[in-house]
Amino acid sequence: MTAPIRYGTVLILSGPSGAGKSTLTSRALAEFPDLSFSISCTTRALRGGEKDGVDYYFLSKEKFEEHIAKGDFLEYACVHGNFYGTLRSEVARRVEEGRDVILDIDVQGAQKILERAEKDELLARCVETVFIAPPSRAELERRLRGRGTDSEESIAKRLGNAGRELSCWKQYKYLVINDDADKAYENFRGLILALRSSTKRLKEDPFHEQR
Amino acid sequence: MTAPIRYGTVLILSGPSGAGKSTLTSRALAEFPDLSFSISCTTRALRGGEKDGVDYYFLSKEKFEEHIAKGDFLEYACVHGNFYGTLRSEVARRVEEGRDVILDIDVQGAQKILERAEKDELLARCVETVFIAPPSRAELERRLRGRGTDSEESIAKRLGNAGRELSCWKQYKYLVINDDADKAYENFRGLILALRSSTKRLKEDPFHEQR
Repeated sequence: MTAPIRYGTVLILSGPSGAGKSTLTSRALAEFPDLSFSISCTTRALRGGEKDGVDYYFLSKEKFEEHIAKGDFLEYACVHGNFYGTLRSEVARRVEEGRDVILDIDVQGAQKILERAEKDELLARCVETVFIAPPSRAELERRLRGRGTDSEESIAKRLGNAGRELSCWKQYKYLVINDDADKAYENFRGLILALRSSTKRLKEDPFHEQR
Repeated sequence: MTAPIRYGTVLILSGPSGAGKSTLTSRALAEFPDLSFSISCTTRALRGGEKDGVDYYFLSKEKFEEHIAKGDFLEYACVHGNFYGTLRSEVARRVEEGRDVILDIDVQGAQKILERAEKDELLARCVETVFIAPPSRAELERRLRGRGTDSEESIAKRLGNAGRELSCWKQYKYLVINDDADKAYENFRGLILALRSSTKRLKEDPFHEQR
């Protein structure tokens, strides 16, 4: 028998920068072919090396506002004068085909998607929320400094944000504490597999021919 | 940092006989030291090789009825004139210590525990339901015959029961289809790990010293 026909999982991932979201995500994307990363839309200019439809969908401000007006975004935000947003169609297309989608999104964005899910049957069935956290604030600071890419000011700002973000873990269904990278990945991949066994995402009765 | 302090998971496992529950459970018990099997109470006589407190808690009918009267059982049933039941204390003690407990229980028993969980805060936090199913009715039949231990009559009866039980998968939160034993175990152990990341079972804020 083939695997039962199911909707994919929309895996909403939040957590402070330095918690290890990108590393966990990269490993999962490399391991699971039917898992992909949701591509966001932005109105900011394309930077060197970036590709439209790969890094972002680069949209004009007019086009972006048209999508806002039509309610096409699951969530969107304006950061330093540029818009960023996640199209519902980008996510829906994949989960309807049974593929899992990862959304790396901040706490506010996640909250907006959960609110929308209350009136959106597909989202309600597919959305699962995971908070990735560092083992402690001290370890987070060590990691941010260890990168060697951030200024003192940037580190101080990130740490301040991290403190606020950390207090939001309760809004999430799962919490993965990234102490040891391999153990955290073991938990994260277990979560991806486990959520594929969720009965609420089955499209039909897998035993319908057997009764 | 040590792992966050949490309640254990009460893993309710149902599924037709021959679906592979025992094999999955044995492998999990061998792998995870902080996972254990709930020991049921029974009024039937102790058989050769069985030990009180290991295979069952062997109780007198009077003692069993006393527990019923006090509401001590999460669920109980009478089969062929003997009582079988799961004490709430047996499960609560372990999950309060953060250990996971597996309950191998039929569809009716699971339903009773879910009803009780509506008024029992600890159960509501800890109970998760998993249905283990064979890939098909034909494969189930093949497995039951392959054991070589059951009579034709017993096989026919088991298959009849299996058909009825299979239709109950929707009442469960997770469905593990046991097609390939190793893949099914991979999913099952992923589920055990994933459920340990559930925020609703955390006893306290793991970042309370960090804000």
